[in-house]
Amino acid sequence: MRERNVYLRMKTLEEAREIVFETFSNVKMPAETIPVEEAIGRVLAEAVYAKLSSPSFHAAAMDGYAVCAEHTFGASEAEPKELVVGVSAFAVNTGHVLPEGTNAVIMIEHVRPRGTDRIVIEAPAYPWQYVRKMGEDIVATQLLFGQGHRLTPYCIGALISGGVLEVSVRKKPRVLVVPTGSELVEADAEAIDHLKPGQVIESNSKVLLGLCLQWGAEPKRHPIVRDDPEALREVIEKGFADGCDLVMTVGGSSAGTEDFSKSVMAGLGEILVHGVTMMPGKPVLVAKAFGRAMFGIPGYPVSAIMAFEQLAGPLICRMLGATEPKRHRIDVEPIRKIPSKLGLEEFLRVKIGIIGDRRVAISLPRGAGSITTLTQADAVLRIAHDVEGISEKERVPVELLKPFEDLRNTVVVVGSHDNTLDVLADVMMERTGRFTLSSSHVGSMGGMTAVRRGVCHAAGIHLLDTEDGSYNRSYLQKYLPDVPLRRIQLVMRDQGLIVARGNPKRIRSIADLAREDVTFVNRQAGSGTRILLDFELKRLGISPGSIRGYERDEFTHMAVAVAVLGNTADAGLGIFSAAKALDLDFLPVVTEQYDLIVPEAFYDTAPIQAMVEAIRSETFKRRARALGGYHTERTGEILD
Amino acid sequence: MRERNVYLRMKTLEEAREIVFETFSNVKMPAETIPVEEAIGRVLAEAVYAKLSSPSFHAAAMDGYAVCAEHTFGASEAEPKELVVGVSAFAVNTGHVLPEGTNAVIMIEHVRPRGTDRIVIEAPAYPWQYVRKMGEDIVATQLLFGQGHRLTPYCIGALISGGVLEVSVRKKPRVLVVPTGSELVEADAEAIDHLKPGQVIESNSKVLLGLCLQWGAEPKRHPIVRDDPEALREVIEKGFADGCDLVMTVGGSSAGTEDFSKSVMAGLGEILVHGVTMMPGKPVLVAKAFGRAMFGIPGYPVSAIMAFEQLAGPLICRMLGATEPKRHRIDVEPIRKIPSKLGLEEFLRVKIGIIGDRRVAISLPRGAGSITTLTQADAVLRIAHDVEGISEKERVPVELLKPFEDLRNTVVVVGSHDNTLDVLADVMMERTGRFTLSSSHVGSMGGMTAVRRGVCHAAGIHLLDTEDGSYNRSYLQKYLPDVPLRRIQLVMRDQGLIVARGNPKRIRSIADLAREDVTFVNRQAGSGTRILLDFELKRLGISPGSIRGYERDEFTHMAVAVAVLGNTADAGLGIFSAAKALDLDFLPVVTEQYDLIVPEAFYDTAPIQAMVEAIRSETFKRRARALGGYHTERTGEILD
Repeated sequence: MRERNVYLRMKTLEEAREIVFETFSNVKMPAETIPVEEAIGRVLAEAVYAKLSSPSFHAAAMDGYAVCAEHTFGASEAEPKELVVGVSAFAVNTGHVLPEGTNAVIMIEHVRPRGTDRIVIEAPAYPWQYVRKMGEDIVATQLLFGQGHRLTPYCIGALISGGVLEVSVRKKPRVLVVPTGSELVEADAEAIDHLKPGQVIESNSKVLLGLCLQWGAEPKRHPIVRDDPEALREVIEKGFADGCDLVMTVGGSSAGTEDFSKSVMAGLGEILVHGVTMMPGKPVLVAKAFGRAMFGIPGYPVSAIMAFEQLAGPLICRMLGATEPKRHRIDVEPIRKIPSKLGLEEFLRVKIGIIGDRRVAISLPRGAGSITTLTQADAVLRIAHDVEGISEKERVPVELLKPFEDLRNTVVVVGSHDNTLDVLADVMMERTGRFTLSSSHVGSMGGMTAVRRGVCHAAGIHLLDTEDGSYNRSYLQKYLPDVPLRRIQLVMRDQGLIVARGNPKRIRSIADLAREDVTFVNRQAGSGTRILLDFELKRLGISPGSIRGYERDEFTHMAVAVAVLGNTADAGLGIFSAAKALDLDFLPVVTEQYDLIVPEAFYDTAPIQAMVEAIRSETFKRRARALGGYHTERTGEILD
Repeated sequence: MRERNVYLRMKTLEEAREIVFETFSNVKMPAETIPVEEAIGRVLAEAVYAKLSSPSFHAAAMDGYAVCAEHTFGASEAEPKELVVGVSAFAVNTGHVLPEGTNAVIMIEHVRPRGTDRIVIEAPAYPWQYVRKMGEDIVATQLLFGQGHRLTPYCIGALISGGVLEVSVRKKPRVLVVPTGSELVEADAEAIDHLKPGQVIESNSKVLLGLCLQWGAEPKRHPIVRDDPEALREVIEKGFADGCDLVMTVGGSSAGTEDFSKSVMAGLGEILVHGVTMMPGKPVLVAKAFGRAMFGIPGYPVSAIMAFEQLAGPLICRMLGATEPKRHRIDVEPIRKIPSKLGLEEFLRVKIGIIGDRRVAISLPRGAGSITTLTQADAVLRIAHDVEGISEKERVPVELLKPFEDLRNTVVVVGSHDNTLDVLADVMMERTGRFTLSSSHVGSMGGMTAVRRGVCHAAGIHLLDTEDGSYNRSYLQKYLPDVPLRRIQLVMRDQGLIVARGNPKRIRSIADLAREDVTFVNRQAGSGTRILLDFELKRLGISPGSIRGYERDEFTHMAVAVAVLGNTADAGLGIFSAAKALDLDFLPVVTEQYDLIVPEAFYDTAPIQAMVEAIRSETFKRRARALGGYHTERTGEILD
């Protein structure tokens, strides 16, 4: 077989970073002087020293009377002392200058007035009591902030108090972001209404603009450049000529026949890195021209973000003379074994569950094309290239994408997939402004296993007892006899056959799945839907082997509906709302019961109580019914 | 004694928050529709559903040939299969639409061309290999983000990919910030050059503007309002009339004779909270008028920030329907006992040291007036009001103000204070862009104790052996005989008497300190400077009791210099640079040796090595000498 040697020797991420930092080590942004009030988020180009002390005078720290402490010595309840207002005692409010000759303040609460011009005290003042001494906070000439410091709102207070009204900060690097690819269309209403197969709405550049701003750069976006090396070269050249400090092309950084970034950059300067042993983000390109940096950012959304955050962003920080932003890390345990490839550093997106004392990680899909794996993720689990998989017994560090405290407010639901779980999460947030729910889809049996292992707060199940037609109870008795649980009915829902619009294959019932001309798409083993199917097949005396596509399984109702919409299957068993979402036809087979089970130990916690209240709310029931195919008569009832 | 009942019954912070949230629970910002690209940081007013699937078609996930998998079954090395390009195999690049009738992609690396129009394969393709199926990332109609979600750059990618170009977000609450106080002057160059005693440069409002932006509001600042209730009333009324959603006055929220916020707010509406049992931040005021919220923010800088972050900011989040930003927490051990007052919830600012496996907290000064305690802090330690002090054996949670990873890069130096430590921190950051140093001032003996207890990486000491005139070595032998250490000379420095400019008291030597007309300011017991003084006094036969002010001790050279500048002392013993910084006169007494000691266990770590290299750099030596009174001939030498 032919092997293409398309990349320079691939670099590890560490090597690539080293090359980038080394090559551009002398590219630091020049300084500019700006008013302090506009400097939040900016990076100091040089250390800042205070010009004034703060306080700039001895100031009263309480409302009361300023006195010379020595004059009060000897005062006691038995022998009170009298002071003359305006002579030996001076009325002051907090913040007032201490009058000449005084060195202490007596609180107003601790004096007794005598006549109009005298006060009596029954205890001595000690020198400097309730006085903010000059320079107590800031001493003129002291270093306030060193170079490289990123200014916060707090810093503004210290700078102004120290008499500093202007600061020298690093100019923001100007970054030109150039989306490339003939398949791309600009994101406008027109394009979205008339999107053709093969067309992709350009979104990466918008994400990169946002990241550039976050990392302290000043980004500018170029309109989409078609797959035309000459055009791309001109755009980059003009970018640098117009004073850009860095150019990022997006897409076309790999080695396909339409990937021109490398040849264009090689023509303009020198390729430094092509290909990094990271995933996502492998086909990243780094080059140098006109003394400045060019990045070829891969076109898959997650790859684009990883390439930015691991290479381009860190270079921007170096140019600013600042440290890289760091994410908080915590140790977690995977809820199941995570395989990984040797030789690639992987950035796996995970959800985090705080289950009692445990912190568990649930893997999200790994595809570089799936931006929702990043928006849904709570954390990123980095798997080093010399590691081959992580067992569920290991504790591994993850980098948090959300505040840990928010994760505590998240109910982790593992089990069967149902669309009303999304609605429930939204209703919980609407009602409480605080609690929400995250769901992972592993099927009903998987959900029960997760409950037994203590790696979730709740599981969604719809398991048909093929003996008596009941749902869930007998499975719990069999598989979780020792776990004290509450079972709450979430919804009753219609399951049926999802078929193409107009039902071209004239499918009428489960029996039709055995037809030669019908291709089926299945759900995974252990899912309630699969059990339902197998039950119906057995009842009808149909062998699974006779169903074309029985072995192809998907993990969600939506995936089944997508298979039908995309004509890769003629029918699948699933819920009405999935068919409705994609405008497909639906043939009801059965109405089944979908319950949430919650271990007793968690039931009285605030997040679970918020969930239960949300389930019982009219809002949830109304919105669930609006999805179609849901019935809420007994929604929220405790069943066991 | 008179007791003023100036506050309504003070509320606990929890009670105050409850009152605020309850009173304004129906004040939610209206929605506005904006382009997705401008929505980073904004909060969704309603849930967003995808309009398009992504990918919107079955797409090749590799460069290669699209085939119908079923046509490739049976291919092997022994029996290769031939496919006809354009008939049974179609060249595709990553991202291309899968041609009709195909359902798999074979990587270009795994085909062998035969002639111009045929390819040969030696293995079958399985269905859907290297295909990104329609809807794999996003399925049209799926919920993308719920209401209350704060959009990140990542979200922009998911929204555009899902065909969503506009989102409904909550309008930003308009906040009017009104600094009040006749002592305040606007921060301009003129004011700073001619600042009079009693005048304070207004800075709180600028900090609050920055915080408002950070928390998602749209702030506007009013110029300073003098202490005039009528003027203040008009400003607030006009603010609400102009459509502000919230007004914050700053200063005058307490109960002094010039504190008008309460009476003005009471006149406009209803006082909800006056006084919260928190520190700093106690005199905070919350009121309601015209259905909207007014906050009387206290005038001390740290109080102002705490009042905002605990009450005003959280209300802004509620108005946006979003969750409050949360800080990460870690558990730490205090390096010494922390006393605290029962009945007040304290927000203590602390520095954090990561010392081997230990995480230690070092308290910063507690004054509400000291903004630098917040800018220098790594974390905030909240001490509940029912807790009376924390022992050094306890582990307590702190809220981090900086990424934990940055703290790992900080060398924690505890011990005697020296100005060159600030320079060293700045040089380290300049050289490495990563490592820095934080110093806490507990005197030389305190530094050695910290080393013995393992709560710092290094200690700065300058301890005179009064037997032989040597520095430091004999103390280490006596107090740390069992701790393997490196001792590095940082600087030689001049110590002497700091006196007022022009030396009005004509002080000539240590002997003059015993004069009746001379007031001295001392350093704390255990400091090297105090040992030096006691040595000199003994040598001269002067009794400490004969020195006026011997018992008044300060913790830093700068504090001593400030005492002299403020005329509260005529002389103090300290270093030249402190005198120079405040333009005071200096009478050299001795040149002493200031060393850093580093436990052997830490010496080879990257942060310490960065520190040692910085000490040895010409930049550090030059900048140290430029401070005045420093000598660097042996700077950086290892002494033991």
